Amino acid sequence: MTDTDSDGLTHLYSETVRATMDGGTYGAWRSIAGADAVPLSFGFPYPDSFPNDALVKSAEALVAAEGDCALQYGGGEYADALPELIASRARDRGIACTADEIHLTNGATNAIDTVCQTFLDPGDAVFVEGPTFMGALRLFRNYDVEIAAFDVDEDGLDVEAVAAALEARAAAGETLPTLLYTIPTFHNPTGVTLTADRRARLLELAETYDFVILEDDPYGQLRFDGTEPAPIKALDESGRVIRVNTFSKTIAPGVRTGWTIADEAITAQFDRINAGGEPSFTRGLITKYAEDGRLDRAIEALCAGYEPRRDQLLESLEARMPPGTTWSEPDGGFFVWVGFPDGVDAETMLDDAIDRGVTYLPGTFFYPDDRGAGHARVSFSHTTPEAIDEGIAALAGAVEAAMPTAEADD
Amino acid sequence: MTDTDSDGLTHLYSETVRATMDGGTYGAWRSIAGADAVPLSFGFPYPDSFPNDALVKSAEALVAAEGDCALQYGGGEYADALPELIASRARDRGIACTADEIHLTNGATNAIDTVCQTFLDPGDAVFVEGPTFMGALRLFRNYDVEIAAFDVDEDGLDVEAVAAALEARAAAGETLPTLLYTIPTFHNPTGVTLTADRRARLLELAETYDFVILEDDPYGQLRFDGTEPAPIKALDESGRVIRVNTFSKTIAPGVRTGWTIADEAITAQFDRINAGGEPSFTRGLITKYAEDGRLDRAIEALCAGYEPRRDQLLESLEARMPPGTTWSEPDGGFFVWVGFPDGVDAETMLDDAIDRGVTYLPGTFFYPDDRGAGHARVSFSHTTPEAIDEGIAALAGAVEAAMPTAEADD
Repeated sequence: MTDTDSDGLTHLYSETVRATMDGGTYGAWRSIAGADAVPLSFGFPYPDSFPNDALVKSAEALVAAEGDCALQYGGGEYADALPELIASRARDRGIACTADEIHLTNGATNAIDTVCQTFLDPGDAVFVEGPTFMGALRLFRNYDVEIAAFDVDEDGLDVEAVAAALEARAAAGETLPTLLYTIPTFHNPTGVTLTADRRARLLELAETYDFVILEDDPYGQLRFDGTEPAPIKALDESGRVIRVNTFSKTIAPGVRTGWTIADEAITAQFDRINAGGEPSFTRGLITKYAEDGRLDRAIEALCAGYEPRRDQLLESLEARMPPGTTWSEPDGGFFVWVGFPDGVDAETMLDDAIDRGVTYLPGTFFYPDDRGAGHARVSFSHTTPEAIDEGIAALAGAVEAAMPTAEADD
Repeated sequence: MTDTDSDGLTHLYSETVRATMDGGTYGAWRSIAGADAVPLSFGFPYPDSFPNDALVKSAEALVAAEGDCALQYGGGEYADALPELIASRARDRGIACTADEIHLTNGATNAIDTVCQTFLDPGDAVFVEGPTFMGALRLFRNYDVEIAAFDVDEDGLDVEAVAAALEARAAAGETLPTLLYTIPTFHNPTGVTLTADRRARLLELAETYDFVILEDDPYGQLRFDGTEPAPIKALDESGRVIRVNTFSKTIAPGVRTGWTIADEAITAQFDRINAGGEPSFTRGLITKYAEDGRLDRAIEALCAGYEPRRDQLLESLEARMPPGTTWSEPDGGFFVWVGFPDGVDAETMLDDAIDRGVTYLPGTFFYPDDRGAGHARVSFSHTTPEAIDEGIAALAGAVEAAMPTAEADD
């Protein structure tokens, strides 16, 4: 009965793991870096934004206040208070919810994964924006599902294209989506925001065709211009919308604390299947840190830090990029989506761009299919305005070198 | 096409979630508490054991050393160094491993869950000790598997009973286990330790019958007497053993950092499916805290704190419990397994015990079947020696009151 396969323990893996195990690793895009290159690739906050001292002081105050339980399983009153803090902030944005509708997670990625684990069977369909957050694509792929991506324009997801696909699938008896994943505000990677009309229409489609809308909103509070349309979850009266969010962009990525907002029954299932990993100390720390309006002031300061970075990026693109280049003009968030002149392939150009002193993420990373070669995600979040300008100068040089010459075109 | 089921979104849940959704929530046992009762129920460290000030100082030193990245995605050099710190400490215990064989998790529970997600399909069989950690049972149940529990004696799991069951299942063509879950050292809830001979025999069975041994060792370093048998993973030459562990008992539960040790190929799968939730700040903090031998000194201090608690519990049991009571005598860890005189049901006795001033966990919590009514897990970890004695006095009173009278027996 001895089994000495050369496959290690692969034959004992679950069916889904065996079906998806060659799919690559989350975070592989972080290898796109150059020691001397300006980092426009990562959706990372700029280092000066980190509240190092305030968090250390909050930790000190937390253990002074509840030293007997701050590090215990479950933590003390500060950790306990975090769901209500989150619910209260959500209510301020128009989302009627209680602390019982909040499930805490280890960052938004873990939140998305918990939603996947709850809803997805192999062979299910997931609808996404094309382009969309590569990390979410990476997670969906782990569940052996069909991923269909729908175009995004300056008003966000093309909801009528989704409607047409739903109608066609329903008519043909094909699989309808279980989930539609959207980043409606300051979308990753394009920076665009889904209009209020489209939000309402999307919710109507979810009700008609019986799917869940997974609304991911890590950037919504980082707004420099205009006013926010109501979150899709704020419009949701039938419990079809699950909202995920995180403190990664409003406090710091290293605190890795995210959450879902969903009806109580769904929240109870999330609590059940994503249990036992609660970092009570971090949770107490966040509540302590957020006290007395400090989180709101921190978010204002972050907006004041990101806005000139966005302005510089748009100005540098205007000043430096060759004709035929296009870009989005976001009102907030971290990202601008750049379209290159015809014939420029962002993926093949990348090595030269890094040599010239800039990194970006090729557009192909953001699609579940083979689209995106002519685009790049450029992030203004991670570095200084001065470096952003240098980076775009380097990018312009790389694009000019990559452009097919007129002769070659003839 | 509108679907207005009264089930919310239940009909959209995955098959496994629908099959297991009525199974109860992880941590429900934490509701067993009484405001004035001595807490012998929880496997919680005693509050004075928490390194509050040392962790705050480590946080301060961490941001002083690498303030530009301690809170960034991935963290800095301290966070990066944690897998090698863990691997090096595992090598000190005889486990040949490198940092590439370490997958970091949000505590041991998340580690066990990641192993489940990798290996378990609905209908698979999981073998466990009976009794075993109720949290692991809770996780296994989420995967819609058969759970078979095998007796434990003073030498740990009855490995020959496992061998007999394997042989019988193989002969009958029945499902063989995918995983065998064991807590070989200072077992939860019995406190016993699996002998070296049984460890070797268990590994032999895993090779013969082609299953994975999941070795969970949260308590192994909290040893007050004797010497540790080699970890099962230290004996493993074929990569059949996956070891999980945590800093919850050696630093504090609130830091919620655990890990797996497994072959590189398996570790890569864990990295893939359990991705994106890395709390970089906590990871850097742990490495910083552990520097310069501090973690080893902290573990020595913890042993010095737990040993008199264990001694007191055993002394109080001896002095106070009525004839017919039995108990294990652990060399370390957190737990003693108490057997009550015939006719005493630990579950029905619990309310009275809480009224008398003590909590414990009824033995039924620790079985996947209906065994355990005559036993309780009593933890010496959470309170003071004085309170332990008071708690056992209260327990003795409850047991005496619950014992069938001689008359009633006649």
